[in-house]
Amino acid sequence: MNATVHRLDPRGKPSLEPMMSLVAHDLNLVNSVILDRMQSDIPLIPELAGHLIAGGGKRLRPMLTLASAQLLGYAGTRHHRLAAAVEFIHTATLLHDDVVDGSDLRRGKRTANLIWGNPASVLVGDFLFSRSFELMVEDGSLKVLKILSNASAVIAEGEVNQLTAVRRIDIGEERYLEIILAKTAALFAAACRIAAVVAERSEADEVALDAYGRNLGIAFQLVDDAIDYTSDSGTMGKDAGDDFREGKMTLPVILAYARGDEKARAFWKDAVTGKRSSDEDFAEAIRLVRETRSVDDTLARARHYGQRAIDAIGGFPAGAAKSAMIEAVEFAVARAY
Amino acid sequence: MNATVHRLDPRGKPSLEPMMSLVAHDLNLVNSVILDRMQSDIPLIPELAGHLIAGGGKRLRPMLTLASAQLLGYAGTRHHRLAAAVEFIHTATLLHDDVVDGSDLRRGKRTANLIWGNPASVLVGDFLFSRSFELMVEDGSLKVLKILSNASAVIAEGEVNQLTAVRRIDIGEERYLEIILAKTAALFAAACRIAAVVAERSEADEVALDAYGRNLGIAFQLVDDAIDYTSDSGTMGKDAGDDFREGKMTLPVILAYARGDEKARAFWKDAVTGKRSSDEDFAEAIRLVRETRSVDDTLARARHYGQRAIDAIGGFPAGAAKSAMIEAVEFAVARAY
Repeated sequence: MNATVHRLDPRGKPSLEPMMSLVAHDLNLVNSVILDRMQSDIPLIPELAGHLIAGGGKRLRPMLTLASAQLLGYAGTRHHRLAAAVEFIHTATLLHDDVVDGSDLRRGKRTANLIWGNPASVLVGDFLFSRSFELMVEDGSLKVLKILSNASAVIAEGEVNQLTAVRRIDIGEERYLEIILAKTAALFAAACRIAAVVAERSEADEVALDAYGRNLGIAFQLVDDAIDYTSDSGTMGKDAGDDFREGKMTLPVILAYARGDEKARAFWKDAVTGKRSSDEDFAEAIRLVRETRSVDDTLARARHYGQRAIDAIGGFPAGAAKSAMIEAVEFAVARAY
Repeated sequence: MNATVHRLDPRGKPSLEPMMSLVAHDLNLVNSVILDRMQSDIPLIPELAGHLIAGGGKRLRPMLTLASAQLLGYAGTRHHRLAAAVEFIHTATLLHDDVVDGSDLRRGKRTANLIWGNPASVLVGDFLFSRSFELMVEDGSLKVLKILSNASAVIAEGEVNQLTAVRRIDIGEERYLEIILAKTAALFAAACRIAAVVAERSEADEVALDAYGRNLGIAFQLVDDAIDYTSDSGTMGKDAGDDFREGKMTLPVILAYARGDEKARAFWKDAVTGKRSSDEDFAEAIRLVRETRSVDDTLARARHYGQRAIDAIGGFPAGAAKSAMIEAVEFAVARAY
């Protein structure tokens, strides 16, 4: 047998570099579309949007569209505009998220809502969201419009679902997965899938890329949620312990609560309902999470989905695009090591 | 000459009744689409959306789509889904508006943000907005998608424009018109225009219906803004003097400031910047607005746009639809009498 089986190896030092090199040229063109289409006669719009868009985001989702297109050997330019639309949807979501969470730090910078207020963040988010649909309409594919309008509705549902799950100790792993599937993985899936649509590939290729994006998105969110309970959260550019203080039921908490003794369970109940939110309480939370191996097992779950993402694109021909997409998964799951 | 010239007569007692009767059957079908498509597995979504959607709105914008379709003799059913999409865009905008303004009363009921909080209102607004695009994609007309995605972006721009104009005494009538054209009239125009698209009529018919909706929208907003400075604002279902207390630069204030003496101008500067917001201050504002005939002239401006709306559809054949659309304009401009 000479099958090439790619097993996820979390002990390496994977990086996003191969994917960034792969799409560098395309991403410049996407950035031009982004900068051009976030303009408005109302100066506050490009000012506020630019703060977040220019401010150090990885452009992970548009990169996935671009890399997927390369995997399929697509030689056109339609995906540039659509990758910009994907980034606009993501940016709109971030602006609204920060309002919902009352966050004051994102990517290591002060959030837009802190600088310009909640009203401006809500409305500029609405603008970017509308603009993303204008970009899709210009492209003219109803199939792409369907995929991305559905993803947008699912994201909003996921955000509401998360909102109603906050500060509720009775939330379990299944509900948590349902939430991250909607709020994070749906856009990763759509970003990859639309590449197959513009490349006019088969339904099977669409499904494969959708699965790659979806599983990568779940893995990505699991690792994000694990990192919030490791001591060096500063590297994320968000406040350490944000999820803890907001009473978010993420997998590390869900596992630590399920596995804890009576005393630990009492602690988590208090923490999640906001009765324990000091730095000492957060230190205790980290200790409990470590003791129950809850971060380790959150990361093990992430590796499971990462492996599924890699296997989903197993059928595509080897090459720079495929290698970069595999290493992007390895990078996503290795961030917490 | 036997031309039928319809002159706007504000002294009559016009009503929305003819338009409501005209579209009653269609509107039931639109309501079914609305109720069906605001559902979600996340119970908070239909609960919150239903509060606003079921709660006494006039469905003015979807009615305009339906009436315009009848004016053109359209016999299909596509406009039901699209009228629902229009109402979803409007509802999403209201939810976000109430967050932006911190309103606590809408249509005589407590606002969603007061009951469920700002985060839920922001996210359910996002959901309805996404859902409206799903409805348009199901219809499948790229032309309709272009009209409504553009209108959505323009609305968001108008809202941001308004936000940056708040509490600024230097805002004049031109800037004010620019704002209401975007935040209100754009959706009225789009709601009417899409009827011409589904009825597959000429560009000229599209433009005529667009102009009807746009001018009606401006008139409608002018009257709304005038009513806030009349003493019986309670009939609007919103708090009397809301605009005054929020420091919004609406036309009654712009005119009263421009026409006022030095003392009056000092008063308005203080009022707009929030230094005068008591009930006594509001009473003084109403006195100044009356003294300068600023409400009267705001309403005169509204009649100007109302007349333009009526003339815009002058070329369409007489009949129940046209009469109802004319009387809807008369109703819009007569509300403050």
